[in-house]
Amino acid sequence: MSNRNTGPLREKIHEIIFEADTPWGKAFDVVLLILITASVLVVILESVGTLQAQYSQLFLILEWTFTIIFTIEYLLRLYCVYRPIRYATSFFGTVDLLAILPTYIGLLIQGTHYLLVIRALRLLRVFRIFKMAHFLSAGDTIIKALKASRAKITVFLMTVLLIVIIIGSLMYLIEGGQNESFSNIPRGIYWAIVTLTTVGYGDITPITGAGQFLSAIVMIMGYAIIAVPTGIVSAEFISENQNPTSNRACRYCAGEGHTLDAIYCKYCGEKLEE
Amino acid sequence: MSNRNTGPLREKIHEIIFEADTPWGKAFDVVLLILITASVLVVILESVGTLQAQYSQLFLILEWTFTIIFTIEYLLRLYCVYRPIRYATSFFGTVDLLAILPTYIGLLIQGTHYLLVIRALRLLRVFRIFKMAHFLSAGDTIIKALKASRAKITVFLMTVLLIVIIIGSLMYLIEGGQNESFSNIPRGIYWAIVTLTTVGYGDITPITGAGQFLSAIVMIMGYAIIAVPTGIVSAEFISENQNPTSNRACRYCAGEGHTLDAIYCKYCGEKLEE
Amino acid sequence: MSNRNTGPLREKIHEIIFEADTPWGKAFDVVLLILITASVLVVILESVGTLQAQYSQLFLILEWTFTIIFTIEYLLRLYCVYRPIRYATSFFGTVDLLAILPTYIGLLIQGTHYLLVIRALRLLRVFRIFKMAHFLSAGDTIIKALKASRAKITVFLMTVLLIVIIIGSLMYLIEGGQNESFSNIPRGIYWAIVTLTTVGYGDITPITGAGQFLSAIVMIMGYAIIAVPTGIVSAEFISENQNPTSNRACRYCAGEGHTLDAIYCKYCGEKLEE
Amino acid sequence: MSNRNTGPLREKIHEIIFEADTPWGKAFDVVLLILITASVLVVILESVGTLQAQYSQLFLILEWTFTIIFTIEYLLRLYCVYRPIRYATSFFGTVDLLAILPTYIGLLIQGTHYLLVIRALRLLRVFRIFKMAHFLSAGDTIIKALKASRAKITVFLMTVLLIVIIIGSLMYLIEGGQNESFSNIPRGIYWAIVTLTTVGYGDITPITGAGQFLSAIVMIMGYAIIAVPTGIVSAEFISENQNPTSNRACRYCAGEGHTLDAIYCKYCGEKLEE
Repeated sequence: MSNRNTGPLREKIHEIIFEADTPWGKAFDVVLLILITASVLVVILESVGTLQAQYSQLFLILEWTFTIIFTIEYLLRLYCVYRPIRYATSFFGTVDLLAILPTYIGLLIQGTHYLLVIRALRLLRVFRIFKMAHFLSAGDTIIKALKASRAKITVFLMTVLLIVIIIGSLMYLIEGGQNESFSNIPRGIYWAIVTLTTVGYGDITPITGAGQFLSAIVMIMGYAIIAVPTGIVSAEFISENQNPTSNRACRYCAGEGHTLDAIYCKYCGEKLEE
Repeated sequence: MSNRNTGPLREKIHEIIFEADTPWGKAFDVVLLILITASVLVVILESVGTLQAQYSQLFLILEWTFTIIFTIEYLLRLYCVYRPIRYATSFFGTVDLLAILPTYIGLLIQGTHYLLVIRALRLLRVFRIFKMAHFLSAGDTIIKALKASRAKITVFLMTVLLIVIIIGSLMYLIEGGQNESFSNIPRGIYWAIVTLTTVGYGDITPITGAGQFLSAIVMIMGYAIIAVPTGIVSAEFISENQNPTSNRACRYCAGEGHTLDAIYCKYCGEKLEE
Repeated sequence: MSNRNTGPLREKIHEIIFEADTPWGKAFDVVLLILITASVLVVILESVGTLQAQYSQLFLILEWTFTIIFTIEYLLRLYCVYRPIRYATSFFGTVDLLAILPTYIGLLIQGTHYLLVIRALRLLRVFRIFKMAHFLSAGDTIIKALKASRAKITVFLMTVLLIVIIIGSLMYLIEGGQNESFSNIPRGIYWAIVTLTTVGYGDITPITGAGQFLSAIVMIMGYAIIAVPTGIVSAEFISENQNPTSNRACRYCAGEGHTLDAIYCKYCGEKLEE
Repeated sequence: MSNRNTGPLREKIHEIIFEADTPWGKAFDVVLLILITASVLVVILESVGTLQAQYSQLFLILEWTFTIIFTIEYLLRLYCVYRPIRYATSFFGTVDLLAILPTYIGLLIQGTHYLLVIRALRLLRVFRIFKMAHFLSAGDTIIKALKASRAKITVFLMTVLLIVIIIGSLMYLIEGGQNESFSNIPRGIYWAIVTLTTVGYGDITPITGAGQFLSAIVMIMGYAIIAVPTGIVSAEFISENQNPTSNRACRYCAGEGHTLDAIYCKYCGEKLEE
C-alpha cells in the first residue's frame, strides 16, 4: 500500500493513522487508545449524580475536547484513506462517526434526556482498540469458530426461546392465581429466562409446591442445556486447533479434506498442488 | 414423491404445504410462520391484565381467526398427504391438532380457567417453524450428539437427583429447627437444586454457620459438576465433527468403525465396499 | 458364577437377588427399585408438617414395613452371596446396612431429633438402582474420565479455595466497616464462594463502590474459571471417546499408547499380543 | 544440585527445606503445611467478633508464634539457597516475605484497621502448599493450557467488558428515571456484569417491561457466551492431551510440529533426532 504515490503528506498521515508497525503509527494508536478510554470514563462518571453536580463544567469541557479531537481524527482518516467511501461505510468508519455525532446533535435538538440515549452509543468507540491489537488472529479464530457453529447456535437459541415461552405460560397457569409475581405470561417468560440461564435474580420466585417442582425441572434442564452451546463451540475450536483443513482437492483423485501441512494426497499418494 | 399420480390439485396442495423448495411452498411456509408467531403473541398478550381489559373483543376475534385458518390448514394436510394416519400420529401432526383443539373445547366446556391450561399447549405450534429451516442438518447434529450421550446424561441426572435428595435432607436436619425456610425436606431439596444448578434465587438461604458451610460445598460441587454434562456433550459433538464414522463393515474381516473417507479396511487392508 | 454347586435354593436366591438377566432377577430388581423409591418418598413426606400431623400412624407403619422388607433382603444377600464379608464391607453392602439401621436405633435411643439425622442416610439406598442399570458402562466412562482428571481437578479446587479465602478477606477489609453482611472473614469467604460459583443468592451483597468493583472482578473471574474444569473433563471424555488406549506394550519395541483396536505396533509393525 | 560442596550443614538444611524426596524434607513440608493452614485459620477466626472478644490474648500469641517460626524459616531459606537474591525476588520468596511482614509493620505503625489490610496478604502463603504437591504436573498442564489460550481469553474478556459497558449504559437510559437501582451508569455496568455472568444477586433488577426485555437478552447472551472461554480452554486441554507436540525440527527439511512419539519426519520421511 505504501508503494502508491499519492503525495508525501497524505502518505505520511495514512501511515501514522492506519498502520501500527511504524514508531509514529504505534504512538498514535496508544494516544488514541488513552483518549477513547478517558472519554468513555467521562461519560460514565457524568452519570453519577454527585459528580455531575460538582464537576458539570469540567465534564462539558472534556466532552467537547474529546469530540473535537475525534472529529479531526475522523476527517483526517477520510482525507488520507485510499477509498474514503469504503472506510465511511465500514464497521469502524460508522462507529467513528457515531462516536462524535451525539455531541453535535445535542446542540441542535434540545432535550437532555433524549440526547443521553444517543450519547451511550459513543461507548462503542472502544471497539477501535481492537485495531491496534496483537490479538487480531485470536479474535479471528473466535469469530471463525462462532461462524462455523452459527446454524447450530441459532437452532439452540430458537429451542431455548420455545422452551421459555411454553414454560413461562405453564408457570402463569400454575402460579398465576396465587402469586402476584406471575400476573401475566410475559412475566412468566421473563422468570423462565432468569431461571433457565441460571441467573436466578430471585425477584420472581414460585411459592406453590407445583410451581417449585416445575422450577426445579427448569433449573436442571438449564444446567444440562448449557452443555449444548458449549459442546458446539468447543468442537469448532478443536477443529480449528487441530485440523485446520484446507480447501485443496487432489488433482489426481479429487480427494478433499487435507490438512494444511499435507504435501501428498492421503487417498492416492500423489503430490498436492499449492 | 412428486412423481406419483394422485390428481393434479391434491398434488399441487401437497407441493405448497409440504415442500419448501418451490416458490409457492416457500411463500406458504413464510406466511404460516408469521401467522403462528402472531397467534402465539396474541395468547401471550391476552394474559396481560391491562391489555385484556381493553382489547378482549379483538383478542377473541383474532383467536378464532387463527383457529379457523389452522383448522383449514390441518384438514388440507390430512387431505393431500399420502399417508394421513402416519401424519396425524406423527409429532408434528399431533402438535398441529393440539394447536387448534383448545379453542373448540372452550365452546363445549365452560370454565375459563381450565381452558387456559390447555390453550398454553397451542404455543407448541412454534415448533413447526423448524420444518422450513435451512438449519435442519444443524438440528440433526445436535439431536445426534444428544442421543449418543443419552445414557451418560441419564446417569448424570440420576446422580444429581440423588445428591440433591441427600443434601436437601441434610440441610433440613441442620437448619430445620432455626430457619423457617427449611421447614421440610421437599423445601430442602428445592433449595439444593436452586444451589447446585447455580441458579441461586436467594428465596431460601442458610443462616447457620454449618448450613452456610454445607451450602459452600454444594456450590463448589455444582460448579465442578457442570463440567460433566458439558464434557459428555462436547465429546459427542467433536466425534460427530471429526470422525463421522460410517456403519460399513469390512466384507473380508467384518471390522467396523471405519471413518467416512476410508477406502481400505484398517484391520485387514482389503478394499471397503460403498 | 452360576456353575458353582452350593445348594439349589441358595443358588436360586443368588440368581434372583444378584443377577438382572433372568426373568425372576429382573422382576426382583424392579420391585426393589419401586420399594426403595417409595421408602425415600415416605421419609421426604414425613418431614412435611401438615402431612406428619395427619398421617403419622401410616408413616410409622410404612417405615417399619420397608425396614423389615429391607432387613430380610439384607440377610438373604448375606446368606446367598459367595463371600459374605466381602459383600458386607463393600460400598453397596454398607449402604444396605445403613438403610435399615436408623429405624432399629430409633427403638433403643430416645430423642427424635437425633434419630432423624441418621435416618437421612437411608436415602443413600437409591444408589442401588444403579445395580440394575443398563447404564453401567456410561457410568464407568464418567468415573474413568473423572479419575483421569482427578489431579487436575484437585489443583483446580485448591486454587479456587485459595482465591475465595483471599477475596473473602479482602472483601471483609473493604466492606467490613460499613456493611453488616461482611461482619467477619468466614462470611466474606461464604460470599466469595456464592459469587465465584455464579450462584449469587443475594443474601450478602456489596454496597460500597470498591466492594462492587471487586465483586465484578470476582464474577468475571468465576465466569472464566468455569472453563477450566469443563476443559479438563471435556478433554478426558474426548480421549476416552476417540482413543481408548490400551495398556499393551509391543513385545518387540516396547512401544505403548496403542489404540484398543490396533493389531500391529504402530512403531515397528510387529504384531501386538492380546 | 546436591553435588555441589558448600558445607555439610548448609547442604543438609537445603535438602530438608527445599527437597521433598528425602524423609526429612517430606516431614518438613508436612509440618510447614500444617503451620500455614493453622496460621490462616487464626487470621480468619480472629475476624469473628465473638471469638476475638474471648480469645484475643491467644490469637496474639499464636500470631507472633507463627510469625517467628516463618521468619526463621525465611532466614534459613536465604542462608542455604545457592542464589539468595534469585529466591528473594522469586514469586515464592516474595510471598514468604509478605507472609511475615504485616505483624512487624503492626509494631511500628499504629492503626489496627490499616494493618489488617496488609495482614490479609499473609493468606497467600497457602500457595506454598503447591511446592510439595504431587500435582505439580497437573498444575503445569492447566497453566500451559491457560497460557496457550491467553490471547483468546484476553480478546474474550475485552469483548465482555465492552458489552457490559454498552448494556450498562443502555439500562441506565431505560430504567434510570423510574428505578432507583439504576441511578448511574457504573451501577448499570455492575448490574450488567451480575447478569451476564449469570450470578444474578437480585439486589438490582429491572422493573420496566423494556428493562426486563433487555435483561432477558443479556441473560441468554451470557448463557451462550460462556461457551466461548470454555471452548477455548477445552480445545487447549485437548491439544495438550492428545498431541503433545515436541519442539523438534527435522534436520533434513526443518519441518516442525511432530508429535512426541514420532520417529520419522512426517514431511520428508527422514529419521528425527532425539
